[in-house]
Amino acid sequence: MTEALNPTAPLPRVIAFLAYPGMTLLDLVGPLQVMSALPRFGLPFEVVVVGATRGPYTTDTPLAVVPERTFDEVPGPDVLIVPGGEEPTIAAMADEQLIGYLRTAGATAEIVASVCTGALLLGEAGLLAGRKANTHWLHRGTLARFGATPVAERWVEDGPVITAAGVSAGIDMALHLVERLAGAQTARHVQLFLEYDPQPPQGPLDWTEFDIPSFAPIAEAQLRAALVDEPALLAKLLDD
Amino acid sequence: MTEALNPTAPLPRVIAFLAYPGMTLLDLVGPLQVMSALPRFGLPFEVVVVGATRGPYTTDTPLAVVPERTFDEVPGPDVLIVPGGEEPTIAAMADEQLIGYLRTAGATAEIVASVCTGALLLGEAGLLAGRKANTHWLHRGTLARFGATPVAERWVEDGPVITAAGVSAGIDMALHLVERLAGAQTARHVQLFLEYDPQPPQGPLDWTEFDIPSFAPIAEAQLRAALVDEPALLAKLLDD
Repeated sequence: MTEALNPTAPLPRVIAFLAYPGMTLLDLVGPLQVMSALPRFGLPFEVVVVGATRGPYTTDTPLAVVPERTFDEVPGPDVLIVPGGEEPTIAAMADEQLIGYLRTAGATAEIVASVCTGALLLGEAGLLAGRKANTHWLHRGTLARFGATPVAERWVEDGPVITAAGVSAGIDMALHLVERLAGAQTARHVQLFLEYDPQPPQGPLDWTEFDIPSFAPIAEAQLRAALVDEPALLAKLLDD
Repeated sequence: MTEALNPTAPLPRVIAFLAYPGMTLLDLVGPLQVMSALPRFGLPFEVVVVGATRGPYTTDTPLAVVPERTFDEVPGPDVLIVPGGEEPTIAAMADEQLIGYLRTAGATAEIVASVCTGALLLGEAGLLAGRKANTHWLHRGTLARFGATPVAERWVEDGPVITAAGVSAGIDMALHLVERLAGAQTARHVQLFLEYDPQPPQGPLDWTEFDIPSFAPIAEAQLRAALVDEPALLAKLLDD
């Protein structure tokens, strides 16, 4: 108790992860596992997962998840990290409460980050205008609709906004974020304990192997399916 | 309905992930995200998460999870994948119901896999005797107590048993498993959609940077703390 009441102890900085129904689970859990090491290492950070309700929320896997906090309980996190997904993430662009939370919490956060199509949610909240950004390769072109400049890098840092590429890129981005918040040595220790020494069994991605432009109709179909009841938003994204 | 009743349609093979309280969440979610792509790609696999109860279960992050199935509902999965963790995983070695499930389901599964210290649970269930295996680097030495031969590789395949290194190694192992179950081309497509092209910001792990033997007391302390009420099991693992 003495320690908790010590007026000289620094208040922990709050790192909040957004949760919502249908998200891609690894988008959330990759960086969540990385950042959760900070308080475990005794550093002054608090990591929370925040949703409109306490769920449980479905994900794009068979596992449902239970965020521990609601939006009104975490109004001003120091760091806000937003996972992506497929149709449910696109549909969430029309969720006024969720976008409103990103807009207000994002305005005061020291760092706002996204993984994968979480960048589309940041864009709809007005947080990408005039910035370089990335998202899942399938939806990279859409970023320009929010006034962002798409950049095909593993993660893109532009001032307070960091946007990662698809799904697994959240792990790399989070280790970068640990270095930014707590130094390179801490980041290397987190990497050691997560034994993050990737060896993709099929080798690195060979982008020349895939006919990437042929996937454009899939991206458009996802937007149309998810926003079938949101013609104004769809028109902004697709020139309808 | 006609399709579901078509007697010539192959029954989906069941890929079951174990869940239990306190596990390391990325141990579960990395491979879960990878394997969940199989049914999404229209391939005849069903992916489930199974626990003693439907939870919700705490994890080693602030996110709790809800498995959708119980042990009695998935008695004989074709593939069984077991995540690890720290003290809660070690304590689960003394959970008769959980170990009993691994023993019976593991005896009939075509493939039994573990991530991180999930290998200790396989070992306690008798599934590693006489096999090469790996686990999180911190606990690798303990594998010999189960009659296994420790091998320091990203994942180790010995017949039906595949054991991965710590935490993030489950992603690599799962992509290997996709190749084994559904071919290399499917594995490369899963890799593309997860954009798994890792770029650790601090570079690959440099094992010479860390004084690995100095961590041995941490491993022992974890065993002693988790098994304080299980002296027989502790003696088996520690020569007490």
